[in-house]
Amino acid sequence: MPTNGTAKLGWRRYFPILEWGRTYDRDALTNDLVAAIIVTIMLIPQSLAYALLAGLPPEMGLYASILPLVAYAIFGTSRALAVGPVAVISLMTAAAVGSVAAQGTAGYIVAAITLAFLSGIFLILMGVFRLGFLANLLSHPIVSGFITAAGIIIAASQLKHILGISADGHNLLELLVSLASGLADTNPITLAIGVGSTVFLFWVRKGLKPLLVGMGLRPKLADIVAKAGPVAAVAVTTLAAWGLDLGAAGVKLVGAVPQGLPPLTLPSFAPDLVLALIGPAALISLIGFVESVSVAQTLAARKRQRIDPDQELIGLGASNVAAAFTGGYPVTGGFARSVVNYDAGAETPAAGAYTAVGLAIATLLLTPLLAFLPQATLAATIIVAVLSLIDLSILRKAWTYSKADFIAVAATILATLSLGIEIGVSMGVALSILIHLYRTSKPHMAIVGQVPGTEHYRNVKRHEVITRPGIVSLRVDESLYFANARYLEDYIYDLVATQPDIRHVVLACPAVNLIDMSALESLEAIDHRLSDMRVKLHLSEVKGPVMDALERTDFLKHLSGQVFLSHHMAMRALSETGPAGEAPLAAQ
Amino acid sequence: MPTNGTAKLGWRRYFPILEWGRTYDRDALTNDLVAAIIVTIMLIPQSLAYALLAGLPPEMGLYASILPLVAYAIFGTSRALAVGPVAVISLMTAAAVGSVAAQGTAGYIVAAITLAFLSGIFLILMGVFRLGFLANLLSHPIVSGFITAAGIIIAASQLKHILGISADGHNLLELLVSLASGLADTNPITLAIGVGSTVFLFWVRKGLKPLLVGMGLRPKLADIVAKAGPVAAVAVTTLAAWGLDLGAAGVKLVGAVPQGLPPLTLPSFAPDLVLALIGPAALISLIGFVESVSVAQTLAARKRQRIDPDQELIGLGASNVAAAFTGGYPVTGGFARSVVNYDAGAETPAAGAYTAVGLAIATLLLTPLLAFLPQATLAATIIVAVLSLIDLSILRKAWTYSKADFIAVAATILATLSLGIEIGVSMGVALSILIHLYRTSKPHMAIVGQVPGTEHYRNVKRHEVITRPGIVSLRVDESLYFANARYLEDYIYDLVATQPDIRHVVLACPAVNLIDMSALESLEAIDHRLSDMRVKLHLSEVKGPVMDALERTDFLKHLSGQVFLSHHMAMRALSETGPAGEAPLAAQ
Repeated sequence: MPTNGTAKLGWRRYFPILEWGRTYDRDALTNDLVAAIIVTIMLIPQSLAYALLAGLPPEMGLYASILPLVAYAIFGTSRALAVGPVAVISLMTAAAVGSVAAQGTAGYIVAAITLAFLSGIFLILMGVFRLGFLANLLSHPIVSGFITAAGIIIAASQLKHILGISADGHNLLELLVSLASGLADTNPITLAIGVGSTVFLFWVRKGLKPLLVGMGLRPKLADIVAKAGPVAAVAVTTLAAWGLDLGAAGVKLVGAVPQGLPPLTLPSFAPDLVLALIGPAALISLIGFVESVSVAQTLAARKRQRIDPDQELIGLGASNVAAAFTGGYPVTGGFARSVVNYDAGAETPAAGAYTAVGLAIATLLLTPLLAFLPQATLAATIIVAVLSLIDLSILRKAWTYSKADFIAVAATILATLSLGIEIGVSMGVALSILIHLYRTSKPHMAIVGQVPGTEHYRNVKRHEVITRPGIVSLRVDESLYFANARYLEDYIYDLVATQPDIRHVVLACPAVNLIDMSALESLEAIDHRLSDMRVKLHLSEVKGPVMDALERTDFLKHLSGQVFLSHHMAMRALSETGPAGEAPLAAQ
Repeated sequence: MPTNGTAKLGWRRYFPILEWGRTYDRDALTNDLVAAIIVTIMLIPQSLAYALLAGLPPEMGLYASILPLVAYAIFGTSRALAVGPVAVISLMTAAAVGSVAAQGTAGYIVAAITLAFLSGIFLILMGVFRLGFLANLLSHPIVSGFITAAGIIIAASQLKHILGISADGHNLLELLVSLASGLADTNPITLAIGVGSTVFLFWVRKGLKPLLVGMGLRPKLADIVAKAGPVAAVAVTTLAAWGLDLGAAGVKLVGAVPQGLPPLTLPSFAPDLVLALIGPAALISLIGFVESVSVAQTLAARKRQRIDPDQELIGLGASNVAAAFTGGYPVTGGFARSVVNYDAGAETPAAGAYTAVGLAIATLLLTPLLAFLPQATLAATIIVAVLSLIDLSILRKAWTYSKADFIAVAATILATLSLGIEIGVSMGVALSILIHLYRTSKPHMAIVGQVPGTEHYRNVKRHEVITRPGIVSLRVDESLYFANARYLEDYIYDLVATQPDIRHVVLACPAVNLIDMSALESLEAIDHRLSDMRVKLHLSEVKGPVMDALERTDFLKHLSGQVFLSHHMAMRALSETGPAGEAPLAAQ
């Protein structure tokens, strides 16, 4: 980082609220309150819907949107991030918890709470020990592919609620087969509500805003009104279900939701459960962090604000721990709601705290009304929300840019759809690492020669250059480390074995940013074996930090040749001392 | 590879014997025969001992030293490599096979044969699909650490034979505890044989050669005589056991060994067994390959010969398949015996085939004599052989060179000793990858300025250079890929957020050898977000292959700034078009 701002702050690093809180004024309060009202309206149906997606009682979605937001307001660094339950993490929760307990049991709920706790602890530890680099394991294309596949699975999983049937499956194919076999049991009223809500929500998303703008509303206001669409769908279908007693007609309703503030809950510390959930918790943390930081950075950049990724880990970790102790489940920063929060004018994380108050009021007052809310309405909310996640264009883009990246993305999508989300994302990570190792395992190397009349050396294959008999100049265009150390050995042995007149090999290292210990041992082996062939090994243009490391070893003491500051100096020196019969290079 | 020699050979690539066989003459025959006789003498006790180490009947060690050698002679490319059972692979075989069957059962033998088969197929597939880069996952220091730890475990595991007691354990601690608790049962005669043989073999190794040289023998001959030490130990202790009927006194003997040529055996294709052994087979293949290629390259270099690593995979694979079909177990090229083979004058892989004939004769004629061979003698052979593998200096060396490499090596050694060899080597691989990702996750970046009067740009922290207001020149000293893409984002956002006057960011990329798709997406994100801040992103000195890849995307079309051939051109252009009030750089 170019600044040491965070380091200087000392313990304030961990409480960003102390920074922005000092200058909090009436203007910021007003703006934050307006944003909070809008986000609250958006978050109520989403919280219920994502809890349903996670296989949890709807109130857990609400609980996950109260204290976690307060925790983030205290510990988070983004001014606009809106934290809470999100679609992909809800799906991952369902997959992780579903493998240790049956949906609908008390064990399932305890497992979800434990998952939030483990995920929170994992995030906090990563933040404190500055291990955010682990999130790098999830490359951009892998995450895009994974999110797309997860979006497809989520949409498919909600079809059963739209149709009013039962269906289940561990992967997309099983799910679709299960849906198809239950198609005959479709409840027509449920279907009508589900399709109606879906079409309505799509129209709200695409058609309402232009209509409102056409009617003279300011675009920003029109946008905000359109965001209230899901609430309208919830209100209308709940009213219909209550007035027409649709529950008796076989329409599945949300049912009784406990009224009142979040309860105090405790995660389980049963070793078996913790062991079973630790892997999924790590994955959920990483995926949630990557998505959240990406949104936070996008929004911060618009106002030239900074976020601190390490502190974001702590903020999100605190949110998840808060979720675990107040009946919630894993949360992270949501893309859509953060953009809404930002657009609505949120100036500080306090907007999140006010949103939490809004949700708490809803939990106190509105829950009795939710009993009549059809599940199909929530399913429609989810479907419309996740369709924006599905973006198969990443495949085309990867195909154009690099086949290796394409393989990684395609494998991630296919594995996620067919083998499950945890295997999918793990396979993506493993493949990106292997592909990177493969790519760097055969670094570009060029035999270079002197551009006549200059001190420059260029690839003999691309330029008309001067080479000296008995001397090979080899430029390595990659850091030398374990993945390519042996290739370098093979390359040089082949070179020397096929050209018996070689007496000097000069490795030009201007692009070598690192020589790890494997590569050092390879260089030692090369030097020994070249000595056996009476060939000397030299280095040129070794970078400062690389040279520092080499000087800590006795490699340079034993090196048969020399280290030259510039390649031209190497060529001059070696030509002059070369075997008789070779013309030395003219001094320049 | 600099030459396309192998490609031009077509199908001959797969049969190196067709190359060297064409010029095979009487001289080569004589030299190969002499080498074969010496290696045979060395290999008989080793084969028996390593089979014992693998928990297999002794004849399987002999069988593993017959047809596998012929197979390597046909398919291998090294002129001096001597293939057969080796210590570390025998230990790994015991660990892998011991987890699926009990020692002494028929299932144990079938599992060992299946392991050889799977390992052979794995090697051949790697060779055919040129996946030798997978061996890079096992870095030099990791392999050194692993071999050292394996050597310690092997030596400890043989102590029970020296003491004549029973002991067992999954790791070093368990093994030592088990040994200690059985100490009271020590068989004094076994102990005498074991300690006597060990001391004798050490003396043969260290003291015999100087003695013989002092007596006027040529050093090379003295060396060879010394190599026959184990045979002498075997002969003397066998004779003693037979003459004094030591078996009746509680000394464990090898017992009846079937006389005759290797039987035809078949690996098992039981899915459960194959699934359980596939992972260990992969590890055994990789470790065996890495060790074998390293020896082969060392010896080839001395004569400016070439080996082809891809074809070596096929050669070793064929050896293992041959082992599987003739009652053997996993084999690879051994270090000590290859050096002996080379020193004794072996000129072609035919020497290996002659060694195989020698072993076949031994199996036919000598096996009845082996019944009286004390196991303690074989244990002594193993202990003396593996002590040369133990090299803890790798720890000191790694500590000096790089703490990261030290952590990886130390973790490999500790995990191998405490958690078992498979976990140990896997942990080493995982750690080296993580460490590499961590190292490259925060690449060195320098803000650069112009060296007065030149077109050179250097780090502002190290040199007196000229910078331009409103323009930041950032040189990135690492390829950009998923492990560091987000760091680059964070770095640039921080830079721009803390310096509000910045209008242009120029990324100087002379050390960027690769931009993968993650990094491309990061660059796109950086460009978008900088645009939001009204800052332009430019690139300079982009390498040819990197530029080619970028041109396949629409990144350059959307880029807010430009791509400059040289950094100096970038600075000139941007200074001229800069905001009013800035003096443009004088044209040079």
